[in-house]
Amino acid sequence: MTTDLRITGVRITPVAFREPALLHAAGVHDPFVLRAIVEVDTADGLVGLGETYADERHLRRLRAAADAISCADVYALGAMYRKVAEALAHDNGPDGSGLTGTIAAGSAVDRVFSPFEVACLDIQGKAAGRPVSDLLGGAVRDRVPFGACLFPKWAGHPGAEPDGWGEALDPDAIVAQAHRMIQDHGFSAIKLKGGVRHPEEEIQTVLALRDAFPGVPLRLDTDAAWSVDTSIEVARRLEGVLEYLEDPTPGLDGMAHVARETGVPLATDLCGVAFGHLAPSVERRSVAVVLADHHHWGGLHRSRLLAGICDTFGMGLSMHSHSHLGVSLAAMTHLAAATPDLPYACDTHWPWKTEEVVVPGVLSFADGAVRVPGGPGLGVELDRDALARLHEQYIVRGLRNRDGTGQPRRTGRSHEKKTSRR
Amino acid sequence: MTTDLRITGVRITPVAFREPALLHAAGVHDPFVLRAIVEVDTADGLVGLGETYADERHLRRLRAAADAISCADVYALGAMYRKVAEALAHDNGPDGSGLTGTIAAGSAVDRVFSPFEVACLDIQGKAAGRPVSDLLGGAVRDRVPFGACLFPKWAGHPGAEPDGWGEALDPDAIVAQAHRMIQDHGFSAIKLKGGVRHPEEEIQTVLALRDAFPGVPLRLDTDAAWSVDTSIEVARRLEGVLEYLEDPTPGLDGMAHVARETGVPLATDLCGVAFGHLAPSVERRSVAVVLADHHHWGGLHRSRLLAGICDTFGMGLSMHSHSHLGVSLAAMTHLAAATPDLPYACDTHWPWKTEEVVVPGVLSFADGAVRVPGGPGLGVELDRDALARLHEQYIVRGLRNRDGTGQPRRTGRSHEKKTSRR
Repeated sequence: MTTDLRITGVRITPVAFREPALLHAAGVHDPFVLRAIVEVDTADGLVGLGETYADERHLRRLRAAADAISCADVYALGAMYRKVAEALAHDNGPDGSGLTGTIAAGSAVDRVFSPFEVACLDIQGKAAGRPVSDLLGGAVRDRVPFGACLFPKWAGHPGAEPDGWGEALDPDAIVAQAHRMIQDHGFSAIKLKGGVRHPEEEIQTVLALRDAFPGVPLRLDTDAAWSVDTSIEVARRLEGVLEYLEDPTPGLDGMAHVARETGVPLATDLCGVAFGHLAPSVERRSVAVVLADHHHWGGLHRSRLLAGICDTFGMGLSMHSHSHLGVSLAAMTHLAAATPDLPYACDTHWPWKTEEVVVPGVLSFADGAVRVPGGPGLGVELDRDALARLHEQYIVRGLRNRDGTGQPRRTGRSHEKKTSRR
Repeated sequence: MTTDLRITGVRITPVAFREPALLHAAGVHDPFVLRAIVEVDTADGLVGLGETYADERHLRRLRAAADAISCADVYALGAMYRKVAEALAHDNGPDGSGLTGTIAAGSAVDRVFSPFEVACLDIQGKAAGRPVSDLLGGAVRDRVPFGACLFPKWAGHPGAEPDGWGEALDPDAIVAQAHRMIQDHGFSAIKLKGGVRHPEEEIQTVLALRDAFPGVPLRLDTDAAWSVDTSIEVARRLEGVLEYLEDPTPGLDGMAHVARETGVPLATDLCGVAFGHLAPSVERRSVAVVLADHHHWGGLHRSRLLAGICDTFGMGLSMHSHSHLGVSLAAMTHLAAATPDLPYACDTHWPWKTEEVVVPGVLSFADGAVRVPGGPGLGVELDRDALARLHEQYIVRGLRNRDGTGQPRRTGRSHEKKTSRR
């Protein structure tokens, strides 16, 4: 066995895919999501896939990282991480990768390294004839449960045709959205994007979901839109109803304050998004649940480290999702399958997405879960026509920084002053 | 690539090998060290090696674990860990694996799982044609530095021939021991086993080593023999002299007390030896350096988790050693090679050992470092005649529990009352 797995080239293809007019605390989602598909080529012809953000600064960093890891062996992940860190040493400020810009406080090195690591594991798996989950300690489950991500939304983007999901700006419409999503995909947990309308309305929406789906775990994510006082009030009203409350208020101190005053577990993918945040978070007892996201936690091995840290320091682990394509769904599924203590269904924006870059058939939802791909590596293959189409869409639409194109929302939260803590 | 890597059998061979009359806080080392060599067989004929403790209770647990993982795939490490935990659910009390019994407070599951995990990684590496370090993220160094472990000692075991190293009960003799060990192996760091003689004598010994080996990092390990007050006094006297002070006093609270009063970094392989100890240790700021030891931290992947935790929570990482044979030296070398942040030379008892079970040639010390074996898996092979000889020695000597056969020391520390804290 003398395969030559040195990296001979990297191809980075930015793509744009459509997304409905979903609302969140900072505005409305753009009509297109930007992502980049990373293909890593090796001397012996094996190709690995990764998927990541695609704002301009991130793309520039990806290209710098690609140069830095040229000729590296795909097993030399520790050395590769160092090279990426060195390549970004003078360019490690914030980027526009997050929906709200807030995760920019995380680690640029981890965000940039992630797709290359995933691609290298894809290649390692292909070379060894083993699924990526085997390289992460082996799957402890063959199906990974995901949850529905409900959004308040408009019927369509301004000036565009309605998207078929309809407007959802009140509890009844959100419950209807949940019914359809669960009917289509079988999800057994529900997350509601909040921080959009008046807190009282969002409480009523959660209670309506509780009544409509008794026994189904419910989560509310408000993207740090509320003050500490509002957060405490809502949390108290929803004790015993919510599985967890995600980022009600900004910062580790604000979260710790809320946590002390309520019995609802707090989760985060905003104030604890990098390894540097974990020690202060543990010290303050800011969160009960950390939402892993391999895109910004530095790939699959480092997400496993995060899982081990959560286990060691008495925090729960769940999985976060932005909009993503099939390469990342495969990676998320392998990671979740190989993570022993993952008591929560993972997030996914999957149902909102109508376009794809991987060959269909491998990834599908049944009873709210995705079967772990059994083939070597990630187990998914690029549909090159589809990739070209979404890349063309990226070129034609001229979108370069998703955060910079956000549209103002019609719904307001003028009752509420955001307090910036930490 | 359709290799069948399911486990078809496990062979556990207890062995005994000679060790000089080395002194430590609780007594004198027995004339023989007990270890067990674990061989894991797979359906396609690949065999993996592990090495672990061999007291009777541990051997019984190893056999229970071997039954539990029968037929498991060598990549299914997460599932295997669960099976071992289930097999030990009713037998997870302390064992006699430690030199002083103190590490018995660690995790029985992690201790028992460790040699099987190492053996499975050996097989994964052989199947993929890759060294074990590649399976741990890839070597970031091709040579792993080790340090000399100096011991106060008798000239020989009572009633036996002198061992050739001579008595070492004063600073001059210890310095002479260091000269010989560094001449033979080239070590660039020195650890002194303390807690044996009067603290003032041990201070003088450290100062003599400092004078004899200027610039060489020095450590003192007293196996928790001292009170907090003595520890503080010694630490203050040795500020700027010691690289770190290892386990001066028992317990996380005692260590935290000492840490607050001195500038010498404290290290542990006694009060923080399992994942369950890390959160309270971090909370108390008990230690600055954790000494990894894959034998009791659950194998190589979990030792990497420990390394990541240390990195995340601002603790340093070093590597601990009991007496060990070549299978473990190979495993330690692969682990250390693939651990990015390992600023200290690793411990090893290697020079005190005159017997071996692996085929010579792969592992050797040059300039105080071991070259990372480049062959597939661990890169070492059993010398079956040597294994049989050391197993025969185990049988004939009738030793079954090393701690139970300890001999009283002639040197005392009656001036010192051990305070049991935490």
